[in-house]
Amino acid sequence: MQLEGMQVSIIGLGLMGGSLARALRALGPKLTGVDRDPETLRLARELGVVDHTRADLAAGLDMCDLAVLALPVRACVEVIRRIGQDLPVPPRLLDLGSTKVEILKAMGDLPPSCDPIGGHPMCGKETSGLRSSDPGLYRGAMFALVPLERTSDDLVQFAQKFVRALDAQPLLLSAHDHDHLVAFSSHLPYLVAAGLVRILEPVGAENPRLWDLLGPGFRDTTRLAAGEVGMMMDILSTNRGQVDGALRAMINVLQDLRSTLQSDEEILTSRLEGARARRRQLQFQMSRRPV
Amino acid sequence: MQLEGMQVSIIGLGLMGGSLARALRALGPKLTGVDRDPETLRLARELGVVDHTRADLAAGLDMCDLAVLALPVRACVEVIRRIGQDLPVPPRLLDLGSTKVEILKAMGDLPPSCDPIGGHPMCGKETSGLRSSDPGLYRGAMFALVPLERTSDDLVQFAQKFVRALDAQPLLLSAHDHDHLVAFSSHLPYLVAAGLVRILEPVGAENPRLWDLLGPGFRDTTRLAAGEVGMMMDILSTNRGQVDGALRAMINVLQDLRSTLQSDEEILTSRLEGARARRRQLQFQMSRRPV
Repeated sequence: MQLEGMQVSIIGLGLMGGSLARALRALGPKLTGVDRDPETLRLARELGVVDHTRADLAAGLDMCDLAVLALPVRACVEVIRRIGQDLPVPPRLLDLGSTKVEILKAMGDLPPSCDPIGGHPMCGKETSGLRSSDPGLYRGAMFALVPLERTSDDLVQFAQKFVRALDAQPLLLSAHDHDHLVAFSSHLPYLVAAGLVRILEPVGAENPRLWDLLGPGFRDTTRLAAGEVGMMMDILSTNRGQVDGALRAMINVLQDLRSTLQSDEEILTSRLEGARARRRQLQFQMSRRPV
Repeated sequence: MQLEGMQVSIIGLGLMGGSLARALRALGPKLTGVDRDPETLRLARELGVVDHTRADLAAGLDMCDLAVLALPVRACVEVIRRIGQDLPVPPRLLDLGSTKVEILKAMGDLPPSCDPIGGHPMCGKETSGLRSSDPGLYRGAMFALVPLERTSDDLVQFAQKFVRALDAQPLLLSAHDHDHLVAFSSHLPYLVAAGLVRILEPVGAENPRLWDLLGPGFRDTTRLAAGEVGMMMDILSTNRGQVDGALRAMINVLQDLRSTLQSDEEILTSRLEGARARRRQLQFQMSRRPV
């Protein structure tokens, strides 16, 4: 399989789909962009990010070699369930959703004529929509690929080539492992940031000088809490079990820090030194925002 | 009282004391720098940050108009307790410690000939020591001032003038309020960052791909965990009660997020929207690092 000359339909021309289209532009596929928002389709034509635009999902899925779902997780699941029912069956299907277990479950029920694989490009931006799209968004990002048992070896090979063509780094993972790991690396940090902001309310209501005392440490620790809630709810609600496990682990760690602070300064010191050493040796992805 | 011509002793020529000395240089006081490290004293002379250097605490406290303790909290408490015992009594005493209740308690027992006031300049840097000192470190920073009942009105007035002369912003607070508020704005975010890093250990041990999945969100949320542990232990151990309360509040918020995630998506959404709205309206101090 070659990207050159391939007919690729991108379903959803938001930040992720739009950036993907722009990155693919130089690589030779014929691109169809599907979005239900007429304004987005108009902008896509104006910017020339795709060869054709379609408002109709069925028309977009029809007659393509590869369909890419660049939608929120629950919208992905919904579209996948309709494929082979009221929607045509694309021969190959890749999604870009931020959690994988529910999407892969839906993919498992696709008609046999569809070869599906899950994906999660770990990049993003503070802003959303086609207007924020960027042909370099995927560059340097980790791109999780999640094959099903039924996924053909050809598609697994092609998906890795596709990811590398975007200058991103493919990482093969199971859906379970993906959702487990991102609960700790991404979903928990978001909830913790929101929690740190939330507990300020009663403290600041009692003593408003609190609001004068917040410095750059608080700013950085809570940056994720400013993110779009709709997108995060989509992610959290499709990863409930793993997020619950991560929250429980976090609560246990805070309980442990509480009790060692009260009872054993030496152990607390060694816990904090351990976290410090680990934090200083961590390497972080170059991508601009985890999604 | 005028800074011009005043004899000021700065006890401790690390980042905070050294930066204070350099900021005071243009304001006309005569400066004595005290440090037990001969190398620091040599560097202070070389850089010309003070007029005189003393290795001996007693010599530094003697014959000054104002002594400034630029030491970790527990070292401040120790020095204060010795004043009037084996150390001479300075007529005025200001400290720069990061927690205030324990220091103010010790200040309460000073001989009546000493007029004391607590202080906490909320600025800092990733690096420590005189070599990292910066005459602009205090510029734009919030500078908490914590008078005792016995503190003279003259000293309260002077301390505010002193802070403004550094281009910092004085904020009068009680010791209790200070320690309560910084537990939420500073000490809790540090512990939460350390906790987020700590729970990665078992997850990453089981699946090392975790280490490839950490992006800029995780990086920012955990930045504080890379801070110097000795300094943080000094702070935490002198603010145990308030930090425990903040940890309990955080645990409760995380429990609440857990249960709403399982049972009520609408309430969770409104909690997260509330945190988002608050986070987006927060103003942050310009200072480079909260200490």
